[in-house]
Amino acid sequence: MNKNSSNKMALAPNTSNKRETVCIFGTGDFGRALGHKMIQSGYPVVFGSRSAQTSSLIPKDAEVLSHAEAAQKAAVIIIAIQRQHYNFLTPLAEILHGKVLVDVSNNLKINQYPESNAEYLAQLVPGAKVVKAFNTVSAWALQSGTLDASRQVFVCGDDMEAKQMVMDIVRALGLTPLDKGSLLAAQEIENYPLQLFPMWKFPILLSLGLTTFFFFYCLIRDIIYPYVYENKDFSFFLAISIPNRICPILALILLALVYLPGVLAAIIQLYRGTKYRRFPDWLDKWMLCRKQLGLVALAFASLHVLYTLVIPIRSFVRWRISGRIVSQALNNKTEPLNTTNAWLSDSYLALGILGFFLFVLLGITSLPSVSNNVNWREFRFVQSKLGYLTLILCTAHTLVYGGNRFLSPSSYRWYLPNAYMLSLIVPCIVLVVKFVLIFPCLDKPLTQIRQGWERKPQYSE
Amino acid sequence: MNKNSSNKMALAPNTSNKRETVCIFGTGDFGRALGHKMIQSGYPVVFGSRSAQTSSLIPKDAEVLSHAEAAQKAAVIIIAIQRQHYNFLTPLAEILHGKVLVDVSNNLKINQYPESNAEYLAQLVPGAKVVKAFNTVSAWALQSGTLDASRQVFVCGDDMEAKQMVMDIVRALGLTPLDKGSLLAAQEIENYPLQLFPMWKFPILLSLGLTTFFFFYCLIRDIIYPYVYENKDFSFFLAISIPNRICPILALILLALVYLPGVLAAIIQLYRGTKYRRFPDWLDKWMLCRKQLGLVALAFASLHVLYTLVIPIRSFVRWRISGRIVSQALNNKTEPLNTTNAWLSDSYLALGILGFFLFVLLGITSLPSVSNNVNWREFRFVQSKLGYLTLILCTAHTLVYGGNRFLSPSSYRWYLPNAYMLSLIVPCIVLVVKFVLIFPCLDKPLTQIRQGWERKPQYSE
Amino acid sequence: MNKNSSNKMALAPNTSNKRETVCIFGTGDFGRALGHKMIQSGYPVVFGSRSAQTSSLIPKDAEVLSHAEAAQKAAVIIIAIQRQHYNFLTPLAEILHGKVLVDVSNNLKINQYPESNAEYLAQLVPGAKVVKAFNTVSAWALQSGTLDASRQVFVCGDDMEAKQMVMDIVRALGLTPLDKGSLLAAQEIENYPLQLFPMWKFPILLSLGLTTFFFFYCLIRDIIYPYVYENKDFSFFLAISIPNRICPILALILLALVYLPGVLAAIIQLYRGTKYRRFPDWLDKWMLCRKQLGLVALAFASLHVLYTLVIPIRSFVRWRISGRIVSQALNNKTEPLNTTNAWLSDSYLALGILGFFLFVLLGITSLPSVSNNVNWREFRFVQSKLGYLTLILCTAHTLVYGGNRFLSPSSYRWYLPNAYMLSLIVPCIVLVVKFVLIFPCLDKPLTQIRQGWERKPQYSE
Repeated sequence: MNKNSSNKMALAPNTSNKRETVCIFGTGDFGRALGHKMIQSGYPVVFGSRSAQTSSLIPKDAEVLSHAEAAQKAAVIIIAIQRQHYNFLTPLAEILHGKVLVDVSNNLKINQYPESNAEYLAQLVPGAKVVKAFNTVSAWALQSGTLDASRQVFVCGDDMEAKQMVMDIVRALGLTPLDKGSLLAAQEIENYPLQLFPMWKFPILLSLGLTTFFFFYCLIRDIIYPYVYENKDFSFFLAISIPNRICPILALILLALVYLPGVLAAIIQLYRGTKYRRFPDWLDKWMLCRKQLGLVALAFASLHVLYTLVIPIRSFVRWRISGRIVSQALNNKTEPLNTTNAWLSDSYLALGILGFFLFVLLGITSLPSVSNNVNWREFRFVQSKLGYLTLILCTAHTLVYGGNRFLSPSSYRWYLPNAYMLSLIVPCIVLVVKFVLIFPCLDKPLTQIRQGWERKPQYSE
Repeated sequence: MNKNSSNKMALAPNTSNKRETVCIFGTGDFGRALGHKMIQSGYPVVFGSRSAQTSSLIPKDAEVLSHAEAAQKAAVIIIAIQRQHYNFLTPLAEILHGKVLVDVSNNLKINQYPESNAEYLAQLVPGAKVVKAFNTVSAWALQSGTLDASRQVFVCGDDMEAKQMVMDIVRALGLTPLDKGSLLAAQEIENYPLQLFPMWKFPILLSLGLTTFFFFYCLIRDIIYPYVYENKDFSFFLAISIPNRICPILALILLALVYLPGVLAAIIQLYRGTKYRRFPDWLDKWMLCRKQLGLVALAFASLHVLYTLVIPIRSFVRWRISGRIVSQALNNKTEPLNTTNAWLSDSYLALGILGFFLFVLLGITSLPSVSNNVNWREFRFVQSKLGYLTLILCTAHTLVYGGNRFLSPSSYRWYLPNAYMLSLIVPCIVLVVKFVLIFPCLDKPLTQIRQGWERKPQYSE
Repeated sequence: MNKNSSNKMALAPNTSNKRETVCIFGTGDFGRALGHKMIQSGYPVVFGSRSAQTSSLIPKDAEVLSHAEAAQKAAVIIIAIQRQHYNFLTPLAEILHGKVLVDVSNNLKINQYPESNAEYLAQLVPGAKVVKAFNTVSAWALQSGTLDASRQVFVCGDDMEAKQMVMDIVRALGLTPLDKGSLLAAQEIENYPLQLFPMWKFPILLSLGLTTFFFFYCLIRDIIYPYVYENKDFSFFLAISIPNRICPILALILLALVYLPGVLAAIIQLYRGTKYRRFPDWLDKWMLCRKQLGLVALAFASLHVLYTLVIPIRSFVRWRISGRIVSQALNNKTEPLNTTNAWLSDSYLALGILGFFLFVLLGITSLPSVSNNVNWREFRFVQSKLGYLTLILCTAHTLVYGGNRFLSPSSYRWYLPNAYMLSLIVPCIVLVVKFVLIFPCLDKPLTQIRQGWERKPQYSE
């Protein structure tokens, strides 16, 4: 028993606060780390081991006994052993009857076994109360105390009381238990620590692909073309000018791709006349990663803003501007103010600012803590109304940027249009289709379909 | 029974993991969507319906029976029917005795009925255990799986065990239950999905009103006046210059309005000599939307920052600057550095940067997840100390911006002062009153009053 | 009984929804505030007091009785009395037997008493069920309804049922209960409201110290030196130029200090050949405040970005640039484009932008609600991989900024190197050591040690 807890006991001899002994099966790294932490938190710990002899690695305040002896000393037994060796528990079934077995195991691959480790354990020792917990915590983090992430410990199990006991231990270790319900949730809990941003894979791969394409596209138009035809070395455009072309293009395309599946779904529903048939798989998956697509788009938009704001500090830009002014001065003439240009420049900037501002708002509302504090009606309002407004503003920003250059032949080099023109295709399609869908003759049946109405004759079963 | 669950059953024949049948009364859109989702999650579902005949709309794996038959098959019955038809349940009272009835209904208006639907249900079927749940989830979201918002399901009810059963179902559907206590909370839960940013209404209306006023004010001063007197067309100021006047003005005024009610409350308390009398209603409401006022102010401040940072990219600004340089060159003179101007310009920018920086910090600490991790003392420190510092910096930023233009007659057009001068009125009042309140002769009695002391003779009862 | 609740009762005469009477011992400020709030929420409230006579301060709807009488009227008794007077409860032990006693007390200092107030209460009245709650809520916030922070009420206690009763009251008051487990957690809960950003103390003090040092360093180099040698008054550099030197330096040093302890820990583990010995205390503490160090660094980086982006608006910069252009025009020559300079300027800006962008990403993932939604593997990926990438980009940004000025003698004034050179020392050390640690001959044993392996001969016990 450690000092802390015995001190407290002296003051409170008759309370029930005394921590109960916890047994840990397995003296591997995770078992030892958990044991250390539990002893620090005032729990008497007993290890169950094959060899039953104290090793220097095991915390000094812990006893090491045989599995059977150790199990008898505690009501809660933590199984810090790999699933392959679980069958050694079968002969202990009688001793383990009525005990709380805590499964802390993880697998190496997602869905490695047909049933979860915890459910497998429950089958092996039917008389015990199995609780899944602690698998999302790393041994290293427990040891070093740096539990920045993963303070949350997912807990599940069929026995409420057993779950409560485990959740109390979790809290005592300074972690936050999160009840995930019955043992059926164990599979999900075991898969959780194995995944690496699964929802982000598609958006990131997509944006990498688009970035590569537009990089070479701009490379050809903006660096190779002037080098070939005008023998000018603009290779330094690689650092800022070209990224600042790619970023807004990707932001706009990805933002449009956030709203495209919704539009496609509406068309499919209108065509089918029902909402009760599943969408094609690709559309389902696409709809599920819209949030991530939008956030990647926001990242590109933010980079675009930063790249744009440093423009006046760039030495190339300063050189170009001062060159123009000097030539004006040398030619002894002052240009009059071109009001049209002033209008174009200002309104293009203003549209960009407003679009980016709304985009950031959308990003903030997608923070978990904010979206949890918002009801469905408010979320729809923000993500759909404000989202389309953002798309409209950003598309308008790009259109006004183009200004009167769309038809000028000088903006076609080697028959390649300016890259921003390509970026306008998807958002314009989305906006036009959405605009068409707003017309009452389409909006009314769509609303009815979404409320459960069916155009039966076509799809009777 | 669906495949998933039967697969699992084969592996775990003797566990208690088998999902128990759930009954749904009502085959409307929400009932069907919930049924679909439950079958997907491994629950056998039986529908109770008036007609008791399977329609093509109902999920294929579900049985459809009469209400009485369906109710007997399950311990949990979800009432997916509108409140007006609840009275059909009265004859079923005997069968429903001891069952868990889940009220999922919503109303069309806030506080539509004197008591909540769930409480009304509990009165109609006194023997049943009524639990309120699922009303914050939309049928469309359940169907499409896009539960970005509203993963949270508020649950309330008087029977702990019934609540646990419902919360387990909620978790099995991949949602997060949130226990809101006894059935008295049902009213609040039913109102929740109907509201659309209720706390934001006043701040947004106020800022719209102020925006309109200052828009026309600046329109007159900055566009119409030069057009009338100097025949200059500055209409493009509408895009950036005028928004960039309005935004800082609104940010400053709204920020001051965040701190004004606190100052007013202190004066009222000092005057009354007690804190135990309610503030007037308008002051109470004002105090409750201070956070929203502050965030709207932050939004305007952010726009102001963006509008300001694009200044050097604007074609009008480039034209004006190059015009000045060219005329210098043509007149063959170089201006010496004006140190006073350099000081004014730099310190006004620096004050603005620091003020905005602190403002963003305030905004971050008002994120729900951050403010939940902060104790009362820390929150007071940030919101009050840092908040006043922000107000001081932003006011100083505006004052220094004015610089020596305050008294120059050229800044009065048609006797209208510059708009930023108007914006200084409220913040200066707040700061001066706050400064007076800090004096010990006022601060000491105020602290006493806030600790519960009363200047009795005046307000004895 | 208040109107609200009696209205509801009329409609629901036979439900169990009627709030049960709550007793409050103590008529001090907090007791009264809590009483007010409870009556508002529909609870009948009875006060227990020494004098047992109604004072004008006590809410009108509440009864005031002697302690013994009041206690008999309620199952839940809130002890709103200071710990020093708890012993008056001893004679009441019999009446309090089986009652739920809610300890709401706070101390004046952290760890003021050996055991927590709630545990002390549990010892004094062994027959009662003690629950700790409400101590994190301020009386002023309860009174005024402005519960922006501290909606969370930490609750702990050994009796589950008692805890549930208290948590229901908490919810009814519009607050969010958070179960912290058994009564052993009371000490932590009592310390919580007393702390003022404890983890932030070291990072903030450190950055204040460094700021002071670099402020005087830059003051000497950039203002005093030109004043002494060239008699130029650059005092206005104090507003922007010097802060914009200090901010990036501090951001870089603090960011490097986030990664230094990890590198030191690796060296110590390699040297010791085990991970099972505690690190020195200073290293442990340093590792625990890495997140805060990083966020302070991010704050400085953000200020640096703002200070940099306003550069072209500064009147001093405009004066300098126009001076150069005018002299070019007067000398009748145009400078050719210096491609090397364009490369240096653009790539230094691009590195800074990308570094800052990743830095902000790191900051966002450290928001509590985001890091809670991320598993250990993802958190490690972001904080370690992206973190080092950020450090590399920011160091490269500073190196390229230096460009070819490192060896130029003109950048040494009074033998003092440019301040940014000093800022490169720590990050370069961290990056070099980290680079060395990646070599397989060191990385392999380190990984083994972190998985629990020990180089035993040296540390056998």
